[in-house]
Amino acid sequence: MSPIITLTTDFGHKGPFVAVMKGVILKRTPDAHIIDLTHEILAHWPAEAGFWLSHAYRYFPAGTVHVAVVDPGVGTERDIIAAEFDGHVFLAPDNGLLPIVFEADHSVRIYRMSATWYRTQNWPQASHTFHGRDIIAPMAAEIAAGRLHPQEIGPLIDDIVPSLLDSPLVRNNEVRGSVVTIDHFGNLITNIDAELLAGFQNARVRVAGLHLALEQTYGNTQPGQFLALINSFGVVEVARAEGSAADTLGLGHGAPVVVSDRATD
Amino acid sequence: MSPIITLTTDFGHKGPFVAVMKGVILKRTPDAHIIDLTHEILAHWPAEAGFWLSHAYRYFPAGTVHVAVVDPGVGTERDIIAAEFDGHVFLAPDNGLLPIVFEADHSVRIYRMSATWYRTQNWPQASHTFHGRDIIAPMAAEIAAGRLHPQEIGPLIDDIVPSLLDSPLVRNNEVRGSVVTIDHFGNLITNIDAELLAGFQNARVRVAGLHLALEQTYGNTQPGQFLALINSFGVVEVARAEGSAADTLGLGHGAPVVVSDRATD
Amino acid sequence: MSPIITLTTDFGHKGPFVAVMKGVILKRTPDAHIIDLTHEILAHWPAEAGFWLSHAYRYFPAGTVHVAVVDPGVGTERDIIAAEFDGHVFLAPDNGLLPIVFEADHSVRIYRMSATWYRTQNWPQASHTFHGRDIIAPMAAEIAAGRLHPQEIGPLIDDIVPSLLDSPLVRNNEVRGSVVTIDHFGNLITNIDAELLAGFQNARVRVAGLHLALEQTYGNTQPGQFLALINSFGVVEVARAEGSAADTLGLGHGAPVVVSDRATD
Repeated sequence: MSPIITLTTDFGHKGPFVAVMKGVILKRTPDAHIIDLTHEILAHWPAEAGFWLSHAYRYFPAGTVHVAVVDPGVGTERDIIAAEFDGHVFLAPDNGLLPIVFEADHSVRIYRMSATWYRTQNWPQASHTFHGRDIIAPMAAEIAAGRLHPQEIGPLIDDIVPSLLDSPLVRNNEVRGSVVTIDHFGNLITNIDAELLAGFQNARVRVAGLHLALEQTYGNTQPGQFLALINSFGVVEVARAEGSAADTLGLGHGAPVVVSDRATD
Repeated sequence: MSPIITLTTDFGHKGPFVAVMKGVILKRTPDAHIIDLTHEILAHWPAEAGFWLSHAYRYFPAGTVHVAVVDPGVGTERDIIAAEFDGHVFLAPDNGLLPIVFEADHSVRIYRMSATWYRTQNWPQASHTFHGRDIIAPMAAEIAAGRLHPQEIGPLIDDIVPSLLDSPLVRNNEVRGSVVTIDHFGNLITNIDAELLAGFQNARVRVAGLHLALEQTYGNTQPGQFLALINSFGVVEVARAEGSAADTLGLGHGAPVVVSDRATD
Repeated sequence: MSPIITLTTDFGHKGPFVAVMKGVILKRTPDAHIIDLTHEILAHWPAEAGFWLSHAYRYFPAGTVHVAVVDPGVGTERDIIAAEFDGHVFLAPDNGLLPIVFEADHSVRIYRMSATWYRTQNWPQASHTFHGRDIIAPMAAEIAAGRLHPQEIGPLIDDIVPSLLDSPLVRNNEVRGSVVTIDHFGNLITNIDAELLAGFQNARVRVAGLHLALEQTYGNTQPGQFLALINSFGVVEVARAEGSAADTLGLGHGAPVVVSDRATD
């Protein structure tokens, strides 16, 4: 069975940046199955990459190696880390990208790549600006092939750079979160997990002056109508049926979204 | 030989929507070869997906499973269908996407997924808004692996939702069609098949006030010049050499294009 | 070990144009590993495709077949060529795309496809407008599978269409080059190779009225600050930390960039 590696970056699709990472992987692990998670992460914003990884990784087989490169600090002193969690491996810069994947789960094991280990690999000289290609891709290829174990790359650590993304604020009958990402349809996807609304009897969503009930799906509304729903990844989403909520409401990353329980208003 | 699955959606490239479908497939069929047909179908417009599938599927090996998810009615009562046609399998919502692939060919066999069959699979609980991931992807993986036959999913039916795309109007020496899709270069691609022009001696194309002869290729015109040609998929296309016909003419999906035979004017 | 084929085009991601090339390849060589190098080459500009291929190919395993289709002259008398160079194979139209890959290296062997050879293949009738799908893709599949050797397609030639891209002008302590490509971040990437600056003691970069020192990486500058650096592909790049140099400076392909040695000013 081919080892699987996913790639998540903010590189977009111009130029061969993603492709050369794949070339580096295939040179070492020719039977790797490489899947693009997305390359349209908001430039320089690791939090969105972590958000999507946290919701997407479990759809891949156990043993998958997930590579995330959103790395504005490349070439500076920031570390590279490898995490084992829930049967998957995650490789990324230590810049706040990964914590949202593990949250407070203590079963995660995180290793920080040491300069000593790196030197002993005798890999080609790394560039200053593309560690995704020069360090993380070969590391992923070796781990996916079973020739390298994350614990070999350096010390186990228990302190990584925290997420730049605030957790939702929960109090009594209200959850205050924010828009984390916007999909191709202009749906506003928030960091408000359905679990936070477990006790709610009549959840109402407030966003940009709108008050919306929580629907089950897009299909039961009229085209053009705004709606809020728990989306397929289990988080609150604000949509416009057959339209773009983001464009119409003029909202983007970070916009506040509040869910309250009307039963207790 | 690896089973091949193609994916056609309107999901774009933001977020992991396509990727999690691939993860779901690889969990069940690790050796699947998954090819992106396109993910830039006009949002919520199944007709364009059907058009491209109808012209592209035959370039893939027999036995390929083609998955198309343009699904504005997801979560409502619309059905999911599997069709066997010309040695290929097609999976899609029953929303007018697929009929253009089979046209009036009676050899097609179409099966409608039954709720009874679905329940017996004991797949993870499906979301209300992403049946591409939760129902169609696992179904494609099972069919591609040879563990499931389309006829097992439910009854053979002979009535599916018709295409939203009108067929071209043919009378005497004139064919009236429309722009179905616009490619990356801004070429206007119509639903007028070359076969409809079989008897024409001197075909002229009218679009947005222009009268154009039918050329063989782009390369013999001057940059900036408009031209009409039978394109590589066998349909009439209006192009601007080394430019964008769509941008310059301000035309989009649905714009009328008329081909007439000047020999009989 | 699966044969590897990379694809570089200006087709973008709308429609199934790239996908049908993959289908054609997989029909002939089912175990091919097909990697998208990029499909966002500036439309109709082969030089950018050649530039990226020249810098990216060596990250793939020896034996990789690189297909490049930026082909404004498709359907006219332009030739199709296959080149063997540095253990890799390159297939493209003979339109100035490939020369930058080989530069003045005499070890390259270039073969021009002959009409005679093509006819003997009995491939399906080629369209006038999509030789990438109808001629180059099957050729790549056959070569990757080891069933066809480049020398079989036609005569060895020593004269191909030269690159449209001027080489940088080098004199004394100054190198005058230009912007060849712009990445997703808006970084301006030039054709000035670091090797041309080998003797420089204090390199300064002039672009759009700015005078910049050459930095090592993006990370040591303040957000919004312009910088010049030798990028991860070994060429001079002008960037704006956490911003877009292209948007802010209003520069595009062809914009002049000059590196001079201040030590000798």
